[in-house]
Amino acid sequence: MAPIRLGMVGGGNDAFIGAVHRIAARIDGEYQLVAGALSSTPEKAQASGVALGLAADRTYDDFKAMAIREARLKDGIEAVSIVTPNHVHFAAAREFLKRGIHVICDKPLTSTLADARKFAAAVEKSDAKFILTHNYTGYPLVRQAREMVAAGDLGELRVVQVEYPQDWLTEAADDDNKQAAWRTDPTRSGAGGSTGDIGTHAFNLACFITQLTPDSLAADIQSFVSGRALDDNAHVMLRFEGGARGMLWCSQVAPGNENGLRIRVYGSKGGLEWAQENPNVMAFTPFGEPTRLLTRGGAGMSNSVAHLTRTPGGHPEGYLEGFANIYSDAAALIRGTADGKDLPGITEGLQGMHFVNACVTSSARNGAWVKLG
Amino acid sequence: MAPIRLGMVGGGNDAFIGAVHRIAARIDGEYQLVAGALSSTPEKAQASGVALGLAADRTYDDFKAMAIREARLKDGIEAVSIVTPNHVHFAAAREFLKRGIHVICDKPLTSTLADARKFAAAVEKSDAKFILTHNYTGYPLVRQAREMVAAGDLGELRVVQVEYPQDWLTEAADDDNKQAAWRTDPTRSGAGGSTGDIGTHAFNLACFITQLTPDSLAADIQSFVSGRALDDNAHVMLRFEGGARGMLWCSQVAPGNENGLRIRVYGSKGGLEWAQENPNVMAFTPFGEPTRLLTRGGAGMSNSVAHLTRTPGGHPEGYLEGFANIYSDAAALIRGTADGKDLPGITEGLQGMHFVNACVTSSARNGAWVKLG
Amino acid sequence: MAPIRLGMVGGGNDAFIGAVHRIAARIDGEYQLVAGALSSTPEKAQASGVALGLAADRTYDDFKAMAIREARLKDGIEAVSIVTPNHVHFAAAREFLKRGIHVICDKPLTSTLADARKFAAAVEKSDAKFILTHNYTGYPLVRQAREMVAAGDLGELRVVQVEYPQDWLTEAADDDNKQAAWRTDPTRSGAGGSTGDIGTHAFNLACFITQLTPDSLAADIQSFVSGRALDDNAHVMLRFEGGARGMLWCSQVAPGNENGLRIRVYGSKGGLEWAQENPNVMAFTPFGEPTRLLTRGGAGMSNSVAHLTRTPGGHPEGYLEGFANIYSDAAALIRGTADGKDLPGITEGLQGMHFVNACVTSSARNGAWVKLG
Amino acid sequence: MAPIRLGMVGGGNDAFIGAVHRIAARIDGEYQLVAGALSSTPEKAQASGVALGLAADRTYDDFKAMAIREARLKDGIEAVSIVTPNHVHFAAAREFLKRGIHVICDKPLTSTLADARKFAAAVEKSDAKFILTHNYTGYPLVRQAREMVAAGDLGELRVVQVEYPQDWLTEAADDDNKQAAWRTDPTRSGAGGSTGDIGTHAFNLACFITQLTPDSLAADIQSFVSGRALDDNAHVMLRFEGGARGMLWCSQVAPGNENGLRIRVYGSKGGLEWAQENPNVMAFTPFGEPTRLLTRGGAGMSNSVAHLTRTPGGHPEGYLEGFANIYSDAAALIRGTADGKDLPGITEGLQGMHFVNACVTSSARNGAWVKLG
Repeated sequence: MAPIRLGMVGGGNDAFIGAVHRIAARIDGEYQLVAGALSSTPEKAQASGVALGLAADRTYDDFKAMAIREARLKDGIEAVSIVTPNHVHFAAAREFLKRGIHVICDKPLTSTLADARKFAAAVEKSDAKFILTHNYTGYPLVRQAREMVAAGDLGELRVVQVEYPQDWLTEAADDDNKQAAWRTDPTRSGAGGSTGDIGTHAFNLACFITQLTPDSLAADIQSFVSGRALDDNAHVMLRFEGGARGMLWCSQVAPGNENGLRIRVYGSKGGLEWAQENPNVMAFTPFGEPTRLLTRGGAGMSNSVAHLTRTPGGHPEGYLEGFANIYSDAAALIRGTADGKDLPGITEGLQGMHFVNACVTSSARNGAWVKLG
Repeated sequence: MAPIRLGMVGGGNDAFIGAVHRIAARIDGEYQLVAGALSSTPEKAQASGVALGLAADRTYDDFKAMAIREARLKDGIEAVSIVTPNHVHFAAAREFLKRGIHVICDKPLTSTLADARKFAAAVEKSDAKFILTHNYTGYPLVRQAREMVAAGDLGELRVVQVEYPQDWLTEAADDDNKQAAWRTDPTRSGAGGSTGDIGTHAFNLACFITQLTPDSLAADIQSFVSGRALDDNAHVMLRFEGGARGMLWCSQVAPGNENGLRIRVYGSKGGLEWAQENPNVMAFTPFGEPTRLLTRGGAGMSNSVAHLTRTPGGHPEGYLEGFANIYSDAAALIRGTADGKDLPGITEGLQGMHFVNACVTSSARNGAWVKLG
Repeated sequence: MAPIRLGMVGGGNDAFIGAVHRIAARIDGEYQLVAGALSSTPEKAQASGVALGLAADRTYDDFKAMAIREARLKDGIEAVSIVTPNHVHFAAAREFLKRGIHVICDKPLTSTLADARKFAAAVEKSDAKFILTHNYTGYPLVRQAREMVAAGDLGELRVVQVEYPQDWLTEAADDDNKQAAWRTDPTRSGAGGSTGDIGTHAFNLACFITQLTPDSLAADIQSFVSGRALDDNAHVMLRFEGGARGMLWCSQVAPGNENGLRIRVYGSKGGLEWAQENPNVMAFTPFGEPTRLLTRGGAGMSNSVAHLTRTPGGHPEGYLEGFANIYSDAAALIRGTADGKDLPGITEGLQGMHFVNACVTSSARNGAWVKLG
Repeated sequence: MAPIRLGMVGGGNDAFIGAVHRIAARIDGEYQLVAGALSSTPEKAQASGVALGLAADRTYDDFKAMAIREARLKDGIEAVSIVTPNHVHFAAAREFLKRGIHVICDKPLTSTLADARKFAAAVEKSDAKFILTHNYTGYPLVRQAREMVAAGDLGELRVVQVEYPQDWLTEAADDDNKQAAWRTDPTRSGAGGSTGDIGTHAFNLACFITQLTPDSLAADIQSFVSGRALDDNAHVMLRFEGGARGMLWCSQVAPGNENGLRIRVYGSKGGLEWAQENPNVMAFTPFGEPTRLLTRGGAGMSNSVAHLTRTPGGHPEGYLEGFANIYSDAAALIRGTADGKDLPGITEGLQGMHFVNACVTSSARNGAWVKLG
């Protein structure tokens, strides 16, 4: 099948997440990058287009111009990846959605809840598909966990422990650290620092696997590094509808942690544990029996996750392959060959914004419980 | 040196923790068990005395009778181990303390805060030593961690994550499970279930290693098993004086966890992680450097913890040896050959009771912050 | 830069390693697959070409026809990947090499030592580059290990322990298991079973990291499954020039092992350990100091391996990314922008054939030492 | 029951293994140390006796004098622990065996095969029991492994991989390192260095768990440290009766390894893996199913190993408890309350000496296969 023609907004030279999206789009050969508005700086946009081998007339200085022209081209882009800082997501997505171009957008959804609500309306109005890259839901064993919970293997859920520690912001970032700069700037990142950047991933993962509806949270957020405007550590207690409880910890100031997303779920009949840094194995314990190590591609995997792995067990697949699973599932959704039921979209995006908002609000109220959504 | 003559209150046949105390007392040969009031049931007290090889005239039906008579004997006990359910600790300890007999007491201190306060007064008034067996502080690498924090290896402390999950109460216990019976009974255990039984250990460990003063906590405690009178899961946010924050999770309903006490401490200069189930290794990461695995008996250990290990690195020492370290440090304190500065005592006992009380109070107030102590 | 035009021999529908090569070629966008002789069965070759989106006139039934025509096309392939069973490697490669088309070939080099020698001569005569996909050498931490050994961080090498256990051939394979069928057939695989399929990887990895010259080996090889013509388990003792010694174990009948390639190297000053199934971490111990965990993308990495990683530490990269590193380094070699000094080629291919031969010979001589090469 | 009266030969101040034996004897309260010939140096023997609280008249300068007098005492020792360097084991044991005093002896059996044979005759002639402290067989999960193999859980055994790396002799030892001095001295240690000190443990563990009869071995042994008279590294291939094969590696020059005894056993139906440094967990994989983690005290343990654990799962027991299991099983054998079927004795001692001899012989013959026993 011919690859889907893809455009990109953001992701110019030096951008971390743009390069990741491009690899994810390439791994299964489902997309071909043909256009881009790769930077808000025209020179950089052009240079980045050249570096990526884009045609000159499909390298744009401005996402709106790109949306307008590509929509008119006979072989214009069918989908666009938006990989800018958070505050640009909505403005860019709107232009493509209204022209029927599918949008694959980095998380969190926006920098403000107000924008998020308008974003939801825009998605609602459009015929185009909208996918939010909560990429950790693309790991095969995360999907397996979701299935096992749904199948009742854990019984009635009681406790969800999720955490996402990193250490890269332990000290004040250097001035030229672009990744740190916008992530610690409220005008570009939004109200949440660690809560927005990684807490939303942890929260999404908990909801994705458990399929519980979050009810409320109580949070204590901190900025440990002097002069930092946004939180760099957050402690959160969670309540889910139906009585399950949880804790969420995210931190960017925990030395020794690179990208330590990890989840544990416990129910009346069993428990499971998965950690992103060694994602090819998951521990599952039926209560009263020995713990079993389930491996990606190994014994005991559900048929429905088989399409998410490319190699047999023991051939580790990682972050990029998990990300690619989002892209390839999105391709199937766009092509109409799958229903995308496991893909995160606008609902999850809004939920993430509510999470950040509730963390900030609860903490401002000294940890009072705040309703979610 | 002649072994210290030891008595025991509680710990008759079938008691788990009594047998542990006896092994801990034997490992280094510092004690000899010579007397006991091993059960509140006279027949069982006698049978247990026989099983342990105690002389008939030093097997008592009643701890008070034992205290009175042993205090008068020329070769009466010098110290007593109290290993009953919580609600008996104080009544028993009082009898020995007032007669100058050293007391080694299981945790938590008591079943009520009122008793705990009277207990503190009784210890204050006595010349005898009082040791509370927060045994996890006896692990060499826990002491090493405490030293490293004190030496500033982690910089200014910011975040403390401590957890203690188990799974043995995932289902309602059988009627004949004595361990479960008293631990889930408020009249014997006190106001806390998991918080009292294991939460106090986790809280104590966090305070022991960090030497931070806890300021307040916000808690959400649950009883997931129908009909259970006490909490079996607790989520707690912690604030320490000076600004450090923490989370504590304890659970007895987390399938796949046997005895999962684990602590992580992060500061401005580094982080460390230790888990009780594999206690011979600790991860230490100076910020910006590779993680180092410190092993009990291996390179990089402080001289001051050397006396806590009996074998070279690679010869795993465990729970019983850690417990024995408390007993052997207590022997040195009793003999006056060491100052016992690392031994938990009445202060830690009171602190634990405040912790349980604050958890229950905060949770009753829907997670409001409650001052500790 | 425009992608390198790539052809493929073998790798039709259902082939495992062909799909892996294609993903590896795509990940960094350095190649575009434009032609193929994907199967020895014409119908399957055509169907596979369609599935991969190849033009009809560039889907060939026969690798020789492909070599001839592509060499004449103005935009003919610049490089070809050969991913057939072993016995076809040489015949196919020869056709491309003699026409100046670069060859990327799966391992082991051939099915016979005689073919391997002719292969070496053909490579020698050609101006085209030849790369053998000992893909495990593409892992960043494997390259890091090689650098550390070369830098003397381990001192004088003494002991090399390498192993590669799998379990997929624990029982006789089903008749329709194509992967098993040719790998257990001497006419297609060669004299070695597990020794050829995975032992060569283990042997190559040991040589790659240590840069020691193997001197001789003593082997005891077995076929545990009744009726199997080739070895499914091998025990090998190794001697290297200069006095270092090693052991190599490969097995396809070790239940619980998926793809357990693992190496440990010890010298007079330190030791290191790396395992393929969790490839983002490597343990390094300077003698007398705590073990350090080096992570891909983390602290302490050599600058020269930085180009082999796409994401920061903590974002696991795996088998496909390691394979892609071989492809991307090959692209740089083909383009003349790098010297390919770390890429395995014909020398390593011959060395692998000598290894297989020596294993079989030594075992036939009841474990006598046999010279390598 | 009254403790067994125990004497000790060797184990004076500063001796490592003597202190271990004493703790092992104390842990379960089954023994009381009442006499000793603790050193071959009279002053040290006396000082050590005082330090251990022995009566002056039961502190001997000489093991023969001790055997003679203790045998005559009404409350003389019932058993003796022999914890000297290897070359003294037999001379000492003989004196006690001939007087009907049970002997618990450290391994390896002797320093020479000739002595070992005489030793066997002496044991044969005596009514006293003889136990050799291959202490690693006392670990509950090692016994569990043995049971599982015997029960056929692994099917027909095929492959045994056992290893025992350490690093403490990576450099030439200081002159005052007593542990190193006798272990690297052929006159005290015997023909084997690492093979005798730790290789015998590894070999015994393989035989104990698998209950296979070793047939022959081929070895390549080395002394990497200049001037060292005995091997410090050994590579061994093993053949068992019935067709199973194995590899054994022992080393004292592998930096990063403290006491890395580890075994893996594979059969036609499953595999298992256990490592001494984290001895409370064992991995078991029934072929085609997920790996299960069996824990000491956890689900799935055989009833017959229950008496070997003192605490519930999750309370790690280690080296000393495993050693204590040998002592306590020996007490039951001595008292006639158990048959000691799992205890290592003279057969295992002889087997160990054959192992060392065969390693040395095979290596001298350039790795030729040498029959065992």
